[in-house]
Amino acid sequence: MTGPRYTPLVASLPETVPFVGPETQERERGAPFRARIGANENVFGPSPRAIEAMQREAAEIWKYGDSTSYDLRNAIAAHHGISPENVMVGEGIDGLLGYLVRLVVAQGDAVVTSDGAYPTFNYHVAGFGGVLHKVPYAQDAEDLPALLAKAAEVDAKLVYFANPDNPMGSWKQGAEIAAQLDNVPEGTLLVLDEAYVEFAPDGTAPEIGSEIDIEDPRVIRFRTFSKAYGMAGARVGYALAAAPLIRAFDKIRNHFGMNRTAQAGALAGLQDREWLEQTIEKVAAARGRIAAIAQANGLSALPSATNFVAVDCGGDGALAKAVLEGLSKRGVFVRMPFVAPQNRCIRIGAGTEADLDALEEALPGALAEARENAG
Amino acid sequence: MTGPRYTPLVASLPETVPFVGPETQERERGAPFRARIGANENVFGPSPRAIEAMQREAAEIWKYGDSTSYDLRNAIAAHHGISPENVMVGEGIDGLLGYLVRLVVAQGDAVVTSDGAYPTFNYHVAGFGGVLHKVPYAQDAEDLPALLAKAAEVDAKLVYFANPDNPMGSWKQGAEIAAQLDNVPEGTLLVLDEAYVEFAPDGTAPEIGSEIDIEDPRVIRFRTFSKAYGMAGARVGYALAAAPLIRAFDKIRNHFGMNRTAQAGALAGLQDREWLEQTIEKVAAARGRIAAIAQANGLSALPSATNFVAVDCGGDGALAKAVLEGLSKRGVFVRMPFVAPQNRCIRIGAGTEADLDALEEALPGALAEARENAG
Repeated sequence: MTGPRYTPLVASLPETVPFVGPETQERERGAPFRARIGANENVFGPSPRAIEAMQREAAEIWKYGDSTSYDLRNAIAAHHGISPENVMVGEGIDGLLGYLVRLVVAQGDAVVTSDGAYPTFNYHVAGFGGVLHKVPYAQDAEDLPALLAKAAEVDAKLVYFANPDNPMGSWKQGAEIAAQLDNVPEGTLLVLDEAYVEFAPDGTAPEIGSEIDIEDPRVIRFRTFSKAYGMAGARVGYALAAAPLIRAFDKIRNHFGMNRTAQAGALAGLQDREWLEQTIEKVAAARGRIAAIAQANGLSALPSATNFVAVDCGGDGALAKAVLEGLSKRGVFVRMPFVAPQNRCIRIGAGTEADLDALEEALPGALAEARENAG
Repeated sequence: MTGPRYTPLVASLPETVPFVGPETQERERGAPFRARIGANENVFGPSPRAIEAMQREAAEIWKYGDSTSYDLRNAIAAHHGISPENVMVGEGIDGLLGYLVRLVVAQGDAVVTSDGAYPTFNYHVAGFGGVLHKVPYAQDAEDLPALLAKAAEVDAKLVYFANPDNPMGSWKQGAEIAAQLDNVPEGTLLVLDEAYVEFAPDGTAPEIGSEIDIEDPRVIRFRTFSKAYGMAGARVGYALAAAPLIRAFDKIRNHFGMNRTAQAGALAGLQDREWLEQTIEKVAAARGRIAAIAQANGLSALPSATNFVAVDCGGDGALAKAVLEGLSKRGVFVRMPFVAPQNRCIRIGAGTEADLDALEEALPGALAEARENAG
């Protein structure tokens, strides 16, 4: 008896996973974290209205979710001033990125991203046999002109660009991105990941209509309820794109894949603009405090338009990793960039006061220990 | 400007969807259904403990779900007396079937199923370029010997077999299935979909250990929280299989794809065995009433080991379709088999008393109208 015959592609894939979750780390260390500020989650949580909507809908969980996410899709469309035909709701940006890669990437197809950018995108590309071409960051930011040049060079089907960027928190003006659309090579699709854009200054997102035509076939944008809306565990993201591309998702997506309470929660959360504004303020204040804590420890915080801050530990990747491990030992969960020179930093999430108290307490010891071991 | 360059496979896929959801139908008809008994949902809902767990966890929705579904996976393993290494939790059986097909089906690979069996499985196979070979039902039941013979003939990578069957509700003894394992061709994986098995008589599921070794590489079994546990809208299913096959899912699955409240609800629901027993009794009573309603209208109900009943409308597919449309017009949502001769039936879900009151009221008129138009 032999096992199943995997496809040659699957047989060639490694068994690594994009991220180790905080729960797994907690089980390994035998204790919960004091501060969970490593996964870019939004500790301030969703609107109370979203929680209430999810709780109400829990009693209706015997029904499959609406396969077209009709109400949510229409509300999103109204919010952006576009047609529902330009909106695809899916199981988080991760789920939607998987579908998108599947739509366009056959084995051997070229895809371009930044070296050190979102690993889950790379995971999907590898999972469908795409060939990744990586462009270095420039001044801790994804470099759109270089990405587009590389896309032209390798005849890429997709080019990934996150604005704001994860893991560094840097950002570009929307107008600057829009101005480069004419440099998207023929047959390349620009994947504009705007997961964190609600935290960013006005003008970071290219404006629909005046800056990017929603029917422009060269670009697809991704948004999420996991970050500013505080619903990472719900798995709700959406894509904004030309209607034919949106329709293409229907060929392959899991039509009844949306959790019903998540649909209801996202709809309620979208409508609570006041909560969103308050969250953005709280996150900005937390970024300020992280920067102050960094400075008090002789470190510098990079500017951020997200709900996390990259803090330069002042050495190489090994030093930053030692700081991260020291923080973890002291109950503070953070993550860090994977690639040099960004990996001189640790990435700290905008926590609650209590979270950042824990960070403030833990950082001096973690830093001293890391420097000692490095010295 | 051209659009994205889809893969040749995607370009060849139709834009059809496996099912039109009841919400879509309600929007089209301009009114809600009185009885929603067409999607094999469990109208009796989940355990109150599961609802409570989901409501509690809603407040924690800012956190991603545990990427390994550790607690749930361990509880499932304990429930079945196996190791968590033999359990994969995923986004419903639909999601898991998609992953499985992706693991083993490359373009042109042969897959075997029954003509008229679960369309979403076919959707996934087509979506990855597999070639479906269909075997007819025998006496309104999936015909495992014929499926295995076809699998040998076409060198299938997967052979799909649901026990109990959807849409007919028929079932086989677990021992009978286990006895045929040696006829699974070398290199073929038997996909045993047991979505409805909790409703079936004892002995319908092959026993783990005595009848199927959990490490047997020839078979993978699927279970779900969507049916007997009443949580279709949560999207929680699981696979039981040999550890190497379970590990293979980690190469491609959406690691952070599980809704956090769904994980908590499934865990609580699994532990409420009393609620499950009560549900099974209510479903059995509802099946009895559906059969009685059918009989009172001169129709015959097929035996069922599920939460739905196939009712023979006594004519061809066109007649059954007319009855279905007549019911829909009268506010009763049901579905029907796609393929002759099964499509002489409509498939009616085990509803509440009120649901079946609505059916009882609507059926005579729907039937008379259908017969008139057919005559």
